[in-house]
Amino acid sequence: MPTDIEIARQATLIPITDVAKNAGVPDEALIPYGKYKAKIDRDLLQTGDKQGKLILVTAINPTPAGEGKTTTSVGLSDALHRIGKKALLCLREPSLGPCFGVKGGGAGGGKSQVMPMDEINLHFTGDFHAITSAHNLLSAMIDNHIYWGNTLEIDLRRVTWRRVLDMNDRALRQIVGPLGGVSNGFPRETGFDITVASEIMAILCLATDLADLQKRMGDIIIGYRRDKTPVFCRDVKADSAMTVLLKDAILPNLVQTLENNPAFLHGGPFANIAHGCNSVIATSTALKMADYVVTEAGFGADLGAEKFMDIKCRAAGFTPDAVVLVATVRALKMNGGVAKKDLGEPNVDAVRKGSVNLKRHIENVKKFGVTPTIAINHFYLDTDEELAVIKEMAESFGADAVICKHWADGSAGAEELAKIVAAKADAGAPDFKPLYPSEMGLADKITTIATEIYRAANVAIPASVRSQLKQWEEMGYGHFPVCMAKTQYSFSTDPTQLGAPEGHEIAIREVRLSAGAGFVVAICGEIMTMPGLPKIPSAENIYLDDNGQIEGLF
Amino acid sequence: MPTDIEIARQATLIPITDVAKNAGVPDEALIPYGKYKAKIDRDLLQTGDKQGKLILVTAINPTPAGEGKTTTSVGLSDALHRIGKKALLCLREPSLGPCFGVKGGGAGGGKSQVMPMDEINLHFTGDFHAITSAHNLLSAMIDNHIYWGNTLEIDLRRVTWRRVLDMNDRALRQIVGPLGGVSNGFPRETGFDITVASEIMAILCLATDLADLQKRMGDIIIGYRRDKTPVFCRDVKADSAMTVLLKDAILPNLVQTLENNPAFLHGGPFANIAHGCNSVIATSTALKMADYVVTEAGFGADLGAEKFMDIKCRAAGFTPDAVVLVATVRALKMNGGVAKKDLGEPNVDAVRKGSVNLKRHIENVKKFGVTPTIAINHFYLDTDEELAVIKEMAESFGADAVICKHWADGSAGAEELAKIVAAKADAGAPDFKPLYPSEMGLADKITTIATEIYRAANVAIPASVRSQLKQWEEMGYGHFPVCMAKTQYSFSTDPTQLGAPEGHEIAIREVRLSAGAGFVVAICGEIMTMPGLPKIPSAENIYLDDNGQIEGLF
Repeated sequence: MPTDIEIARQATLIPITDVAKNAGVPDEALIPYGKYKAKIDRDLLQTGDKQGKLILVTAINPTPAGEGKTTTSVGLSDALHRIGKKALLCLREPSLGPCFGVKGGGAGGGKSQVMPMDEINLHFTGDFHAITSAHNLLSAMIDNHIYWGNTLEIDLRRVTWRRVLDMNDRALRQIVGPLGGVSNGFPRETGFDITVASEIMAILCLATDLADLQKRMGDIIIGYRRDKTPVFCRDVKADSAMTVLLKDAILPNLVQTLENNPAFLHGGPFANIAHGCNSVIATSTALKMADYVVTEAGFGADLGAEKFMDIKCRAAGFTPDAVVLVATVRALKMNGGVAKKDLGEPNVDAVRKGSVNLKRHIENVKKFGVTPTIAINHFYLDTDEELAVIKEMAESFGADAVICKHWADGSAGAEELAKIVAAKADAGAPDFKPLYPSEMGLADKITTIATEIYRAANVAIPASVRSQLKQWEEMGYGHFPVCMAKTQYSFSTDPTQLGAPEGHEIAIREVRLSAGAGFVVAICGEIMTMPGLPKIPSAENIYLDDNGQIEGLF
Repeated sequence: MPTDIEIARQATLIPITDVAKNAGVPDEALIPYGKYKAKIDRDLLQTGDKQGKLILVTAINPTPAGEGKTTTSVGLSDALHRIGKKALLCLREPSLGPCFGVKGGGAGGGKSQVMPMDEINLHFTGDFHAITSAHNLLSAMIDNHIYWGNTLEIDLRRVTWRRVLDMNDRALRQIVGPLGGVSNGFPRETGFDITVASEIMAILCLATDLADLQKRMGDIIIGYRRDKTPVFCRDVKADSAMTVLLKDAILPNLVQTLENNPAFLHGGPFANIAHGCNSVIATSTALKMADYVVTEAGFGADLGAEKFMDIKCRAAGFTPDAVVLVATVRALKMNGGVAKKDLGEPNVDAVRKGSVNLKRHIENVKKFGVTPTIAINHFYLDTDEELAVIKEMAESFGADAVICKHWADGSAGAEELAKIVAAKADAGAPDFKPLYPSEMGLADKITTIATEIYRAANVAIPASVRSQLKQWEEMGYGHFPVCMAKTQYSFSTDPTQLGAPEGHEIAIREVRLSAGAGFVVAICGEIMTMPGLPKIPSAENIYLDDNGQIEGLF
């Protein structure tokens, strides 16, 4: 079986100018970055009143067996083109740092990939570098303000704004500085996160235009005074220069699938302390260009779909017209209790047992007023009996299910899925509603998500957290949605509880205010915002071969 | 009088594809970055055996009055085009961080500028971001190696490799980390430099191709063991992944002047702890494309020209065919003792007195076997008498001198200079030789530069420094050239000693080995490798106006 990279290298890319032409982008709106990447100048698009249909691709809980959410998004978009529809794919950009850790990224797999994967995984069009610069400019201006007299009276112990690098560098998680005396400044504890964890990343992905981007950046709380009143980014006057640094990063990036269909890859916020979706700007631009826009959200539907609906759609005024929920035989087997090493053995009972996970995700998505279509992402070892069980179970839960072979066959393998999803998207989701209204109190929002989606029997919110939430409500942040930071592997906070756990407690350890992004983060468990490298980082085996091709990145 | 930015905004840029065509770059070798920037795939150039003439633009010692080295480089290149010659301009890329400090960069001034200046000063084509990533990947891999058991036995107190950011952030100069216990690593003292101070920057600018780049990065010494034996970048196996990160950054960037002539902007190493010249790759590519290549070197001729000859030309096998030495009436007046506030008053005597600075630079350049041509960069307050004095003095020192008005008039103002310099370049510099042979001992090299160029009466090299140099010679680094880190404002180490100081002592405080870049740095005085921001950073006044134009950057 050929690897993803082997398949990718046999593909024939068409010039990005042709991709753009096919997508209806006029020449003057195309800003090329090399031959196969471009940015789109949205102001120069002739779009009119068009409003395409929005299709979200989400999934059951991820397992080491894989569910193939991105691959299915690519396959579905290509298949929509195949059946004569005008579609546009909207995905996140991958982060550079982790490529040097365990394995490289890539977008999609098999015959459903986005190209050129090496450039997408390296510097791409520089968006993440621009975010790093904007974030660290603010950091430098904060310490510089303190250095020159601290007229804002920022409490050195309460500076919450850290620095970022797009690098897995655990040594920077916690540092003390500046040292070296008078000429360097006032020492304090601080540290670095990885760039995708920056609030700037979340802001870039929720902003509707440059003015909104600047407003949101101005709203960032960078720390507090001794009296605990907040100090904002705009107080240190960094917001406008940060906007200048992001003026190109805010433009959607155009690339192509293996089948030469257009794809926007834009933005890539963390899916735990942030909302894990590509940019509102890319999605809204795509909705004006295409009849069907296929997009995805990070992690399983309990986190990804909920945040997509309650945070992204709420912020942007989007309505999802259809939802695709990806499942695999192997992942359902794991949810049914099979160990990874035994996944090669057919096991119909385990699939049936594990489909409780699928069932619960279907129920959850229905709570938003949308019935998902189940995409069964086929793997070559799957048996007909196992596949039939998923189809049968899904239908018994009230959802259509389609076996998809886009990994092996490209768009041809997802044609049936495309037909069903297009029809559902055309019908739309008139009953769509977010899980909770904006007016609900912050603590109640947390409880609603925990009970309705995670099915917790008990939600433990400590008094200190409740009082913090209360304070933010008094400060005017009560209308914010809540962004849950929880393990992606289970409905509960215990990553080993697969299937459909019940009776568990969701304990909120800490809450954080992302005042610029516009949400309150509720943290259940440990959240790592700066990864480390493994003992033998993949960087050791990444190199350019004699033909200038990158080896070891994937 | 219009400002640089006003002049720039009235210019009409032509598409970079047309710039490339005019420069003889075939379509397939052009990698566009937006409409007005591109990289050149050197492997796809049809160049043959062409070898253009290399023209170095250097200057008298810089003063706050300005000398206009870059402006003259642009004007000369445009003027060569004007008189029908095929010329290519090779300059350094500006650094992003300092734009948020005192003032923005830009390249050139008046009617002799390189465009598009806003993009060049912001992220440009991402070269500096790539260098930041490559540098910090090595940093992360060093701490990661220590974290996982430190089999190389790196002494935590002797890790010399720091981290970099392209940001003026004094708070990062000196830090302690990683803190936070077992999961983050072993605490040690370290810090950040600005990206242009990275050894990777110097390497990128001296490497002849990707293989040489990787070899040089492998040669970097990242620290020492307890027994003081060096640990190399290749020991932590970072060199090949760093090369992958730099595969595009190594390609020359093509932009245009205000007169739509081609310019390469590529690389920008510090001119104190590094050699301060644009990349060897850009220059050598340009020499294969054009009949005349105009390039410059940082600071005055005592530092810039010397490093250009002894480091860059030696490393690349270049011979300078002509040298232009830029002088201004105002700067010579300051060298003659006039205060900045009095520069508006005509003062023929001060010009005459200050021309000792010009004289000494002419003598120095002649020591390399090349007689410079003096470009008198005209300023609107200059009097005919003052200009005549410089011309007279220059000629009495054995050099031709030409009054140039490219700032006000563009290429028309530098036509005479172009004619003279083209003729000299055609004749070449058959007597060119570096100041010292590679075989000379390191301490003798330092002494040679200090006595021959700086005219020191005494060169103080402490015993500890001598023993360090001796050790490096024993390790096989004796053939390296020396890179002097000294104030740019004076021949001496005292920045207030203008003119042509004599009888001074040059004291070497410290030496550093840049084993990858291939030189030994000799430091005389304080060297700042991470700038800070001023009390009111220019970032506070940088913004996008209602038309999306950047204000406050210049």
